[in-house]
Amino acid sequence: MTVSVFDHPLLAGLLGDDELAELFALRAELDAMLRFEAALCEAEAEEGVIPEAAAHAIRRAIEGFRPDTAKLREDTARDGLVVPGLVSQLRAAVGAEHAAHVHFGATSQDVVDTALALRLVGAMEIFRARIGRVVDALDGLEKRDGNTGVMAYTRMQAAIPVTAERKIRSWRDPLMRHRARLEALRGHIAVLHFGGAAGTLDGLGPKGPAVAGRMARKLGLNLVAHARHSERDAQGDYAGWLSLVTGSLGKMGQDIALLSQSEVGEIRLAAGGGSSAMPHKVNPVKAEMLVTLARFNATLVSGMHHALVHENERSGAAWTLEWMLLPQMTVATAAALRTAEVLVGEISFVPA
Amino acid sequence: MTVSVFDHPLLAGLLGDDELAELFALRAELDAMLRFEAALCEAEAEEGVIPEAAAHAIRRAIEGFRPDTAKLREDTARDGLVVPGLVSQLRAAVGAEHAAHVHFGATSQDVVDTALALRLVGAMEIFRARIGRVVDALDGLEKRDGNTGVMAYTRMQAAIPVTAERKIRSWRDPLMRHRARLEALRGHIAVLHFGGAAGTLDGLGPKGPAVAGRMARKLGLNLVAHARHSERDAQGDYAGWLSLVTGSLGKMGQDIALLSQSEVGEIRLAAGGGSSAMPHKVNPVKAEMLVTLARFNATLVSGMHHALVHENERSGAAWTLEWMLLPQMTVATAAALRTAEVLVGEISFVPA
Amino acid sequence: MTVSVFDHPLLAGLLGDDELAELFALRAELDAMLRFEAALCEAEAEEGVIPEAAAHAIRRAIEGFRPDTAKLREDTARDGLVVPGLVSQLRAAVGAEHAAHVHFGATSQDVVDTALALRLVGAMEIFRARIGRVVDALDGLEKRDGNTGVMAYTRMQAAIPVTAERKIRSWRDPLMRHRARLEALRGHIAVLHFGGAAGTLDGLGPKGPAVAGRMARKLGLNLVAHARHSERDAQGDYAGWLSLVTGSLGKMGQDIALLSQSEVGEIRLAAGGGSSAMPHKVNPVKAEMLVTLARFNATLVSGMHHALVHENERSGAAWTLEWMLLPQMTVATAAALRTAEVLVGEISFVPA
Amino acid sequence: MTVSVFDHPLLAGLLGDDELAELFALRAELDAMLRFEAALCEAEAEEGVIPEAAAHAIRRAIEGFRPDTAKLREDTARDGLVVPGLVSQLRAAVGAEHAAHVHFGATSQDVVDTALALRLVGAMEIFRARIGRVVDALDGLEKRDGNTGVMAYTRMQAAIPVTAERKIRSWRDPLMRHRARLEALRGHIAVLHFGGAAGTLDGLGPKGPAVAGRMARKLGLNLVAHARHSERDAQGDYAGWLSLVTGSLGKMGQDIALLSQSEVGEIRLAAGGGSSAMPHKVNPVKAEMLVTLARFNATLVSGMHHALVHENERSGAAWTLEWMLLPQMTVATAAALRTAEVLVGEISFVPA
Repeated sequence: MTVSVFDHPLLAGLLGDDELAELFALRAELDAMLRFEAALCEAEAEEGVIPEAAAHAIRRAIEGFRPDTAKLREDTARDGLVVPGLVSQLRAAVGAEHAAHVHFGATSQDVVDTALALRLVGAMEIFRARIGRVVDALDGLEKRDGNTGVMAYTRMQAAIPVTAERKIRSWRDPLMRHRARLEALRGHIAVLHFGGAAGTLDGLGPKGPAVAGRMARKLGLNLVAHARHSERDAQGDYAGWLSLVTGSLGKMGQDIALLSQSEVGEIRLAAGGGSSAMPHKVNPVKAEMLVTLARFNATLVSGMHHALVHENERSGAAWTLEWMLLPQMTVATAAALRTAEVLVGEISFVPA
Repeated sequence: MTVSVFDHPLLAGLLGDDELAELFALRAELDAMLRFEAALCEAEAEEGVIPEAAAHAIRRAIEGFRPDTAKLREDTARDGLVVPGLVSQLRAAVGAEHAAHVHFGATSQDVVDTALALRLVGAMEIFRARIGRVVDALDGLEKRDGNTGVMAYTRMQAAIPVTAERKIRSWRDPLMRHRARLEALRGHIAVLHFGGAAGTLDGLGPKGPAVAGRMARKLGLNLVAHARHSERDAQGDYAGWLSLVTGSLGKMGQDIALLSQSEVGEIRLAAGGGSSAMPHKVNPVKAEMLVTLARFNATLVSGMHHALVHENERSGAAWTLEWMLLPQMTVATAAALRTAEVLVGEISFVPA
Repeated sequence: MTVSVFDHPLLAGLLGDDELAELFALRAELDAMLRFEAALCEAEAEEGVIPEAAAHAIRRAIEGFRPDTAKLREDTARDGLVVPGLVSQLRAAVGAEHAAHVHFGATSQDVVDTALALRLVGAMEIFRARIGRVVDALDGLEKRDGNTGVMAYTRMQAAIPVTAERKIRSWRDPLMRHRARLEALRGHIAVLHFGGAAGTLDGLGPKGPAVAGRMARKLGLNLVAHARHSERDAQGDYAGWLSLVTGSLGKMGQDIALLSQSEVGEIRLAAGGGSSAMPHKVNPVKAEMLVTLARFNATLVSGMHHALVHENERSGAAWTLEWMLLPQMTVATAAALRTAEVLVGEISFVPA
Repeated sequence: MTVSVFDHPLLAGLLGDDELAELFALRAELDAMLRFEAALCEAEAEEGVIPEAAAHAIRRAIEGFRPDTAKLREDTARDGLVVPGLVSQLRAAVGAEHAAHVHFGATSQDVVDTALALRLVGAMEIFRARIGRVVDALDGLEKRDGNTGVMAYTRMQAAIPVTAERKIRSWRDPLMRHRARLEALRGHIAVLHFGGAAGTLDGLGPKGPAVAGRMARKLGLNLVAHARHSERDAQGDYAGWLSLVTGSLGKMGQDIALLSQSEVGEIRLAAGGGSSAMPHKVNPVKAEMLVTLARFNATLVSGMHHALVHENERSGAAWTLEWMLLPQMTVATAAALRTAEVLVGEISFVPA
C-alpha cells in the first residue's frame, strides 16, 4: 500500500529519500522505543527503583525481542498508539517475575516522543551535512559562472543586467542562515521526554530526577526540567525550519525553471526529464520538484502549528496530527536537499 | 519505508484504510494506466488511426506485461513521472513493428489523470456507501437514544437541556448533504483526460474527437469538450469535499470526546483505548482520531487550492503537488468514515 | 487603523473592492442585524407570541435606532460578539414596557449568522454578474485573437504551436463551471438561521416553526428544518468555492505574467505598473495580483475547514475564526474578478 | 470599510490591538517610508553622491510633506505599490532642480521593506514586554494557586491528581522560550533593505556600501552584505514565531476553557462574556479568543511560507502576499498577548 509518494515504489525515487525514510521505517522506530525502555530499566536499577535482576531480564528480553506485528497493529488501532501493545509484548517476553518492572514509571508519550527525538537527531545531522554540500556546490558554481553577465528580472520583466553571482548568492545565503538556525533548534529537539502519566514523574517519587538524568546521558539527549508532553513549540519550530529550507530551495528551483525557459535560456540544464509525447523536450524536472516540495511543506507546516493547541496534559488529537505531518515534512526536506545538490551540478549560466 | 501513517505497518490500522489504500497500490495504478493504453489503441484502430494488427499486438503485450519496476523507478526520478518509462517498456514488449503505435497521440498527463479518475470512481462509490452506513448508524442511535434528556453546551458551558436527538441530527444532516454534493462532483471527476501534447489532440487530426468518444465509452468515463490538463477545479472541488466530510465527522468526534469526559458523562463509550501508564482509563481514541483526520484534511486542502495556479499547458510543479496530497486526503476520508461507523455503534447517551 | 489591505486607504484600491467592502461595513452589518430583529418581532406578533403593540414599538425603535458604538465596542470585547450589547441598547430604545419582547426566543448566533446570510446573498449576486462579465470579456478576446498562432508550454518549456483559443478557453471554462457551482451553493447560504439558545427554538414552544416560516419569507431566505448553528458545511463549501474562483483566475494571471515576459512576448499588455527605479518597465501588476489573491484564498480556506470542528451546540472559538476569514475571502474574490475583467481587456495575443 | 476584524469598529476591541494597529496605520507607514528617503538623501550627500543642497531641499520637503492620498491610491492600483506614486509626489514637492536626486539609487522594495522593518522593531519591543507581563502574571498565579490539588487530563479523560503548578508551568515555559527565540530573530528583521533596482546598488557605483552603512546607522538598523529582496527567510521565520506564540497561548486558552466547563470547575473565571439568550451564563470568551487567534495564525503562517517561493530578483505576487498576511499575524499576536495577560488575572484554580 503506497498512499504517500514517500513510500511509493516509483515516486519515492523522485520525491522521497532513502536515507531519511530509513529513520522512519518500522524497525528503526521500534528500535528507538526499545532503546528508551532499556535506558529506563538501567537507570532505574542504578537508582534502586527496580532490582538489578529485573533490569538484566528486561535488557536480555529486548535484545532478543521479536514483536508480533500483527498483534501490535490490532492493539494500535484500539489504543491509538503503539506503546501499550508493545509494552505488553515486552512484559510477556520478560516473564512474570519482572514484568511489572518493564516501562515502570513511564508513559506512552515518553516512549514515542523520545524515540522520535533519537531519530530526529540523526535527521538533523544529515540536514547539516547536505546543506553544507549544497552550499559548496553553489560556491563552486559561483567560482565558475559568477562573472557571467545575465539579466535581472523583477515582477516577471527584464530589469537590468547583473552578474550571475548575484543570483547564486541569493540562493546560497539563506541556506547558510538555515544552517545556523538549525543549531539553535537542535537543543530543543534532542531532549529526553520523560514525565510519566501526567508529566510529573509521580510514579518515581524523589528518584524521578536522578533516573531522568541517567537516562538522558545514556541516550545522548538533553535533560529538561520537566517533560514537555503538552508543550509542542520545539516541534512547531522544527517544522517551520523544515519549511523554511524547502521554501528557500523552492525559490532556487523556481528561478532555475524560469531562467531555463526556451526563450530565456539564461541557464542551461545538462540533464532533464523526457516527455512521452515530445521527445525533443528537456524538462526542468528537478527544479519543478523543488517548487513542489516547497509548497508541500508550506502547506503542512500549518497543521503543525494547529497541533500546538494541545488540550491539557495530553491531546490524542493534536499529538497524532504531528505523526501525520512531521515525518513527511522531514523526508520532503531531505528530498529537496538531495535534489538541489544534484541540480546545482547540472546547471550553467549562459552569457547573454 | 513508511513515512506516512497511511502506509505504516502499525498506524495504518488506526489512521489508514485497507480498501482505499488498495486503489493507490502500485499494481492498481499501473493497471489503470494500461487500461488507458488498451482503450487508446482499440479506439485508434477502430477509427483507422493505427492498424488493427498494431492494436492487437498492443493488447496482447498489455495482457502479459510485467514492468521492470527498478528501471521504472529510475526513469521516474529523471522524467518526473512514470509514463515515459512505462511507455518505453511497453513499446519494447510490443516489438519494433508496432512500437510507434503505442501511446500514439497521447501524452503522459492523459494517462496519469485518467488512471486516477478510474480509481477515484471506485473511491467515490465506497464513500457513498460508507456515508450511507454512518447515516444509518446515526438513525439507529436516534431511534434508541433520541429522547434521552441531555445538556446543550454553548461556548464550552452548559446551556439548557435538550434531547439527544438534537445532537445526533447535527451530526447526521451534514453527511446527507455531503452525499448529495458528491453526486454533483462525480461528473467532473469521472472524466476521460485525453488531449495529447498540448491539450489539442493535434496528433490525431480530424479523428481526435471520435477516438476520444470511443475511449470514454470503453472506460466508462465522461467525455468532455477538451482535456482539462491545466484546469484543476474538479480536483480542488473534490479535495474540498473530502475535507468537508472529515470536518463534519471531526465535529462529531470532538463532541463525543467532550461529552464522554469523566465529569460530563453524557455519552458512555462501550470501548476505548488503553493507556500504558493508567490501566483504569478508557480513552476516546476513535473520537480523537476523527478530530485528527479532520485537521489533517483541513491542512492539506490548502495545498490543493494552491495547485490551481497551474502554469500554462502543464505545470510539473503544481500537478505533482496534487499527487502528494490527494491520495492521502482520499484515504484519510475513508479512514474517518470507517472509524465513525464503528464509533457510532459504541456510544450511548446517558440520561442526565 | 488599517491592518488589512482590504481596509487600507491605499492598498484597497489594488487588492480590495469597494462594492463588496460596502457589505461588510459596520452600517450594513448593523442594518442586517436589525432586519433580523424586525422580522422576528413581526413574525412573533403575527403568531401571537408577543403583543402587536410590542412589535410596533420594536419596529419604531429600530427605525430611529442610533447605536452607541463606543459602548457596543466595549460590550463586544466582553461578550465575544456584538449581539448582547446591541440587544441591550435596542431594549433601552424600545422602553421598559416592551423590552422583554425584543429578541424574544432568539440567540446571538441567529442574528449574526442570518445577518451574514443576508449580505452574502448580495455578494453572490455580484459574483454571478462579474463572472459573467469576465466570461464575456474572454469570449471577446477569443473572437479577436483566438486564431493567433502561439506556443504551448508544458513544464515551463516550449512544447508545440497551438492557437490562442486553446489558452483562452482554459481560462474561461472553469469560470463557467464555477458559476454553475454557485447556484448549488446558494441555497445553503441563503438560509434563515433561527434556533434560539440551543438550536431547538425551545423558547417558542409549538409556535417555533410557524414563526421561523414567517421570518424566512420576510427576509427572503430559505427555511431549513432546524438551525445549523454548529453545522458549518455551507460556510466551508462557500469558502472553497471562493478559493476555486480565485485559483482559476490566479492560473490565468500566472499565464499572462509568463506569456508577457520580455523574452516571450506572446501577450502584449496595453497597461501595466510603473517602477520607481526603472521607468522603462511595464509590470504585469494585475496578473500578479491575481496570483496573490489566489494564494491568499488558498491559504485562508484551510482555516475555514478547521472551523468545521465546532464544539457542541456553539463554539465561540471556531465560529469567531469564520469571522476572521470569510469576509476577507469574499472581498479577495471580488477583487480578483474585478481585476480579471480589466486585465482581459488590456491583453492581446501577439502572432509568433 | 471594515473587512478585517482588526480594522472593525467593534470587533477590533475583541480581536484587535490598538497599540499595534497604530504601527500599521497609513500615517505610520508613510512616515517610515519618508524616514527612509530622508536617511537616503542625507547619506548620499555625505558621500558626495548628491549635492548637499539637494539633500537639504529633500529634507525640507519631507518635513512639510502632505501626500495627496486620493492620487496615491490611484497610482497604487496601477503600479502595485505605493512607492512610485509617493516618490513622484515627493519629487514635485522638492521642485525641479533637485527632483532627480530624490530616491536616487533606491528601488520601491528598499522603501517598503525598510519601512516595515522600522515598524516591526517597535512591534518586537512590545512583544517582548507583553510576554514578560504574561510570564509575570503566571508566576503570580503559581505563587497563589500553585499548590492547589487538581486533576490532570490525558486524551480528554481524568488521569491522576497533580498540583496546579504543573499546568501553570506548561503555559509559562513555552513563552519564556519564545522570548529567547525573539532575540535571535530580531537581528534578521531589524535590517536595512537597500539594493536598488536589482539588489546590486548598481546606481551608486563604488559608493554603494558607504551609503548603505550610513543609512543603517541613521535608521538604527543592521547592515547586511546585500539586500535580501528575494530572500524572505527572515519574514517566514518571524511569521512562524508569531504563530508559535499564539499557538502556545491558544493551548492555555483551550485548557482554561476545558477546566472551567460547568461540570469540571477546576478553574473559576472572575469575568466572562454574557449571552443574549441565557443571562445565567459566564462564557470563557477570552479563553476562546486565544484558541481562535492561534488557529488564525496557524492558518496564515502557511501563506508566508508559500511566499518564500519568490521569483527572480523581485516577485510582485509573492511579496504582495506578505503584505496581506504579516500585519494581520502581527496584530493577532499582540491581541493574544493582551488577552492572555487579562485572562490570567481573572482565573483561579479551585481545590478538587
